[in-house]
Amino acid sequence: MKMNNNEEKIIIFDTTLRDGEQCPGATLNIDEKLAIAKQLARLGVDVIEAGFAFASPGDFQAVSKIAEIVGTENGPIICSLARAIKGDIEAAASALKPAVKGRIHTFISTSDIHLEYQLRKSRSEVLAIAEEMVAYAKSFMADVEFSPMDAVRSDPEFLYQVLERAIASGATTVNIPDTVGYTTPSEFGALIKGIKENVPNIDSAIISVHGHNDLGLAVANFLEAVKNGARQLECTINGIGERAGNAALEELVMALHVRRQYFNPFLGRPAESEESLTNIDTRQIYKTSRLVSNLTGMLVQPNKAIVGANAFAHESGIHQDGVLKNKLTYEIMDAKLIGLSDNQIVLGKHSGRNAFRTRLKELGFELSESELNKAFVRFKEVADKKKEISDWDLEAIVNDEIQQAPDLFRLELVQVSSGDRARPTATVTLRTPEGEELTDAAIGTGPVDAVYKAINRVVNVPNQLIEFSVQSVTEGIDALGEVTIRLRYESQVFAGHAANTDIIVASAQAYVNALNRLYAYLQHSQKQEQVTA
Amino acid sequence: MKMNNNEEKIIIFDTTLRDGEQCPGATLNIDEKLAIAKQLARLGVDVIEAGFAFASPGDFQAVSKIAEIVGTENGPIICSLARAIKGDIEAAASALKPAVKGRIHTFISTSDIHLEYQLRKSRSEVLAIAEEMVAYAKSFMADVEFSPMDAVRSDPEFLYQVLERAIASGATTVNIPDTVGYTTPSEFGALIKGIKENVPNIDSAIISVHGHNDLGLAVANFLEAVKNGARQLECTINGIGERAGNAALEELVMALHVRRQYFNPFLGRPAESEESLTNIDTRQIYKTSRLVSNLTGMLVQPNKAIVGANAFAHESGIHQDGVLKNKLTYEIMDAKLIGLSDNQIVLGKHSGRNAFRTRLKELGFELSESELNKAFVRFKEVADKKKEISDWDLEAIVNDEIQQAPDLFRLELVQVSSGDRARPTATVTLRTPEGEELTDAAIGTGPVDAVYKAINRVVNVPNQLIEFSVQSVTEGIDALGEVTIRLRYESQVFAGHAANTDIIVASAQAYVNALNRLYAYLQHSQKQEQVTA
Repeated sequence: MKMNNNEEKIIIFDTTLRDGEQCPGATLNIDEKLAIAKQLARLGVDVIEAGFAFASPGDFQAVSKIAEIVGTENGPIICSLARAIKGDIEAAASALKPAVKGRIHTFISTSDIHLEYQLRKSRSEVLAIAEEMVAYAKSFMADVEFSPMDAVRSDPEFLYQVLERAIASGATTVNIPDTVGYTTPSEFGALIKGIKENVPNIDSAIISVHGHNDLGLAVANFLEAVKNGARQLECTINGIGERAGNAALEELVMALHVRRQYFNPFLGRPAESEESLTNIDTRQIYKTSRLVSNLTGMLVQPNKAIVGANAFAHESGIHQDGVLKNKLTYEIMDAKLIGLSDNQIVLGKHSGRNAFRTRLKELGFELSESELNKAFVRFKEVADKKKEISDWDLEAIVNDEIQQAPDLFRLELVQVSSGDRARPTATVTLRTPEGEELTDAAIGTGPVDAVYKAINRVVNVPNQLIEFSVQSVTEGIDALGEVTIRLRYESQVFAGHAANTDIIVASAQAYVNALNRLYAYLQHSQKQEQVTA
Repeated sequence: MKMNNNEEKIIIFDTTLRDGEQCPGATLNIDEKLAIAKQLARLGVDVIEAGFAFASPGDFQAVSKIAEIVGTENGPIICSLARAIKGDIEAAASALKPAVKGRIHTFISTSDIHLEYQLRKSRSEVLAIAEEMVAYAKSFMADVEFSPMDAVRSDPEFLYQVLERAIASGATTVNIPDTVGYTTPSEFGALIKGIKENVPNIDSAIISVHGHNDLGLAVANFLEAVKNGARQLECTINGIGERAGNAALEELVMALHVRRQYFNPFLGRPAESEESLTNIDTRQIYKTSRLVSNLTGMLVQPNKAIVGANAFAHESGIHQDGVLKNKLTYEIMDAKLIGLSDNQIVLGKHSGRNAFRTRLKELGFELSESELNKAFVRFKEVADKKKEISDWDLEAIVNDEIQQAPDLFRLELVQVSSGDRARPTATVTLRTPEGEELTDAAIGTGPVDAVYKAINRVVNVPNQLIEFSVQSVTEGIDALGEVTIRLRYESQVFAGHAANTDIIVASAQAYVNALNRLYAYLQHSQKQEQVTA
């Protein structure tokens, strides 16, 4: 049985594509989700929660596609979330069909406050639903995870009952969520210990934990849970997710790695054991972090643990001096361990398609022939402007290609003139979905504003810009600028992203990308209205 | 005695201006440090570590200025760091003289690895130095803090000895640093407990903690330390600092506030006590976070706990529904508690100087008459381009004025033209420190690159651009863009920052600001060379 093989390892359950994608504006399209799922498989996560299949046709398709392409024999378990409702469970089971190893993750709230205000159900009703729906999920597949939502604020006695019944009905993993990010390490450890001691059939299931970082404690809570018997950690890359996010995968994995001598005995190993506590290939951490940050547009702050730009930098003279004398005086881990190497300059203007393809492969990108062609054209354009193309430039180019929004409107020309004594003026030409070329000009408060106003004159979809940020991904004054924008239409948020040496052109392209997503959404909802009408 | 008054409160010791400023590129000038110190006083921190007086004449001046202006009768204690060396302690004492309440914070390493590789001293030598230097600091002022650096990796028995001798020599606070960010909550709690039980005279001093977030555990470690007797927390706004930074003030304070019923008994209070555990005015948290982020250029990621843009946002339909039904289903704190209110639109083109001054005062900005005049001119310029001026715009304008770099080169004109089929071309006019007007033009890979190249033709100071980022501070398509850049000259990093509705103009201004700092540094070091030569 799988459980026994894993009982001395910590199972890493990544929910970047489900809980992570739930943060405002981080919405990903199917190709982006697939790119992240492939990278998560390379990183070595044990389970990918690929989405919430019932939530929308797009979610269903994403789960199904990831199940098919990433859920292979040697690949990770692919999981879909499902409320404890028949329709949800059926959608999850159906989306997961292509996966060699699939898991349905069903949940229902168990705290009194959720029962009263959210579910409007009694405890005995919840108990019956949990039992029935776990059994229903079990009728589709052997691997079923059950979560009592808001477990931390639930009456422990009721929680024990629900867990016992869920396990009796076939749950192979029971997950204990700190839904509101309220608990502290000792309390969470005690909760896991209580479950271990008071749920009679607990040894037939893996104990998992899920938590939010509202008070900055998610990672510490999980590590204390591990000491008390938890063997699966639900986490996300860069800690993205609802509100202040989830526990960060990279922090958990590196804490378990750096401090393995401390954690070993809690897993029944000798303290000095050097065997890894997880299946993660830590050298893939940095690249995965950058991919998720680029595709979701969720920036990583420089002082973020493990993956922030400063995490391995030493500024103060005293520290620098110490590091030069002996690395261990101020370093507890080596930057190479997370795959952080110097920015290598490998390609230039005269590099051919083969060198390009080879380097991309080395970087872990597997592109189809047509994707490769498009990326190579972009590469040549960039190489024309920028002498040396680094690995980071290559990543920016490929990520930019991967995450193309639906190609409805196409940007054909941007031209701006501006300055501190001039009225910023922009001219744009767009090709409409019908193939018509439309050109217009506008003035604005700045060149980006002018470009956006000119685009708005052509694409007449009212929206509100809620975020605009630029980061130069590469060092040097001729950097590729990456622009991320988010705009709001009614209650929906759409993101656009583009990279170019010219940040005004990148801004224009990012805006058109976001508008194309919004436009696709509008077309889709019109179709849905026609269907339901 | 102060200690007794505080024994049931947690002392908040802010080191944003010392450890926080040590992160790569976060360098602040005196005016910026003063602006932050004033805001920290409004926030209600008990101690401000204003710098490391001996480190440089600039550091000395900053500590001295903050001591004078912020270290008033009702203001916080002002502290300077000092190695356990006479010269350091004398510089600290002298810089702190203007403060009503001053504190010297002296430190020496106690771990064997630091003794061997960093200090090259024996344990008995370190013991003697600690004793002697604490006594020396005590000869200048009553309030002396002592830190055994790398305490977490020190032999506990040796640590107890050092602490006992430091307290016997007059240390009123002993601070236990996790210098390399290596410990976990239970271990750190046990260390504090061990100190409490094994240092005979420990009740004559406050136990303080200092920690780094390399494994994402700093906040959790501190909270466990509080449970075991620590009564002072050394922290920074937004958790900035060396590498992955320090424990974040806002996370510590809000965890202690939200979970006060859990922490109360550890401070000898009844669990249900509603009295605050710290002296912090939580409604100042958000504004302080923004000020520090703007002035240091250290971005706050959207999923940062407490102060991230998403920390109080709910995306998933299930959560939104719950929040509408009852806020407590998914919220453990109210956004108002940290001073986060909607972006109020208050001023416009026709607002007069009085309305402007009044609103700034309400926002907590106290400007001198000449600062106000400069800010008002900027306000009018912005109001000309942007119909509605929000509080956030006002903050951006004022912060931009506060942090003007030395006005050596002045940007007189920027003019760019670019586009996806054009060669980006820029013209700039700069006034040199000698009053000469110089104009030049350049082409670049994008408009920013072209502007920078044109500026480089006028100001001939070789440097490397290591970071360029833009954030729109305000919502809406006509947002004020804030540009932060960092450039490197030899081993020094210089930051520049500017806000403008035109991001190209803002980029040019930010670059000139950074160059002015670099230029001032070069002039200064030339002078120093002349003096020492």
